Amino acid sequence: MTLKVLLDVMSQPSRAVSIFCRAAQIPHEFKAIRVAKMEHHGPEFQALNPLKTVPIINDDGFVVKDSSAILRYLTTTRKDVPDHWYPRDPEGQARIDEYLHWQHLNTRAGCAMYFRTKWLMPMLKQSPADEGKVEARLKTMEDALAKVQNIWLEDGKKKYLVGDAVSVADIMLCCEMEQPLVAGYDVRQKWPKLGEYMDRVKKDLHPHYEDVHKVLYGMYEKFSIKAKL
Amino acid sequence: MTLKVLLDVMSQPSRAVSIFCRAAQIPHEFKAIRVAKMEHHGPEFQALNPLKTVPIINDDGFVVKDSSAILRYLTTTRKDVPDHWYPRDPEGQARIDEYLHWQHLNTRAGCAMYFRTKWLMPMLKQSPADEGKVEARLKTMEDALAKVQNIWLEDGKKKYLVGDAVSVADIMLCCEMEQPLVAGYDVRQKWPKLGEYMDRVKKDLHPHYEDVHKVLYGMYEKFSIKAKL
Repeated sequence: MTLKVLLDVMSQPSRAVSIFCRAAQIPHEFKAIRVAKMEHHGPEFQALNPLKTVPIINDDGFVVKDSSAILRYLTTTRKDVPDHWYPRDPEGQARIDEYLHWQHLNTRAGCAMYFRTKWLMPMLKQSPADEGKVEARLKTMEDALAKVQNIWLEDGKKKYLVGDAVSVADIMLCCEMEQPLVAGYDVRQKWPKLGEYMDRVKKDLHPHYEDVHKVLYGMYEKFSIKAKL
Repeated sequence: MTLKVLLDVMSQPSRAVSIFCRAAQIPHEFKAIRVAKMEHHGPEFQALNPLKTVPIINDDGFVVKDSSAILRYLTTTRKDVPDHWYPRDPEGQARIDEYLHWQHLNTRAGCAMYFRTKWLMPMLKQSPADEGKVEARLKTMEDALAKVQNIWLEDGKKKYLVGDAVSVADIMLCCEMEQPLVAGYDVRQKWPKLGEYMDRVKKDLHPHYEDVHKVLYGMYEKFSIKAKL
């Protein structure tokens, strides 16, 4: 049975899984779960994932319900996936895992919460953003971005997070860094070295990166607030 | 060269790594890094981990700097570690990885931030806790604990997070759930099924669990505020 990938392209980890499956040429069937329409709370989805989070995969009855766990499961079970995506040696794996675990409370908490506080919640509630909270989220995000640029990418000396080629860690990172754009914060403008890095990863992932980001970029065009940096 | 494990027993992920190394009988040399004395910001530690986080390991020159990445690296490189700690089959690994990734923004963000807002920051600043923030942290923590009990442990039907024996995921979870105790929140009292589960894991990890928690329990005796549930 074909691998089923259930996700919402409005979610960053969902986009990462989608880009990876396409770029690594893993045969799969895509099923859209629209979070805005609460489809992830429906009985059919909940039976597969009671945590009600996207993305998930269904591999012939075996369900995996976290983006990082999915990425590793796929590289472990699909032997013909090239090693640069998620190396099989323990040292290379540790380097990827370090980033995938670090990002939750840093890049992810920073970028996702900034977007949510600055744009999503005010839009849903039709009321102005709480500027105190926005400032706090901005600080978390910028602390994380500074660490990504200065430590993880060694002030731009490293081309990729791990090794000499694009990996699942780069996909996860870039998808997070796209998110604040809708809320008017363009990572590329404020952090030129991160911008160069993103362009490099985007090129390696062409045309999948742009394809999967189409809906987000559409939202940016339609709804975004003017960038203030 | 013996594996070096650098950590602070006041940090939950540090305790988890320490308990695992002892319980799985992995030969290692322990080095205390006292966060309260800012030793993780010192040049010697920073040269190993510029992110300045504990725990880290140094395996004959190869440094791994995240607790979950460490746990996997050790089970991958130490072939005689029994499989129940971190299964080697892709399905078993995916089940462990799902929890280790989920916990960052749930159990960890909940328990650690509650402890910090309710007890640590007021103690350091010598000023009362911000009750609004404490309430918000309490909510995050209780949402996570409810999901652990009802979903991850299937309302107490499951004995362990993954499979039929204790794993690294159980160690990580129990170390987080010990943390709010110092701030007066005893998980065992409010969530009896989590209490039974913790007792089971504690028994499996005897005497390492108690040994590694000695300093935390000492703090509880010395500083804790009276439990209010």
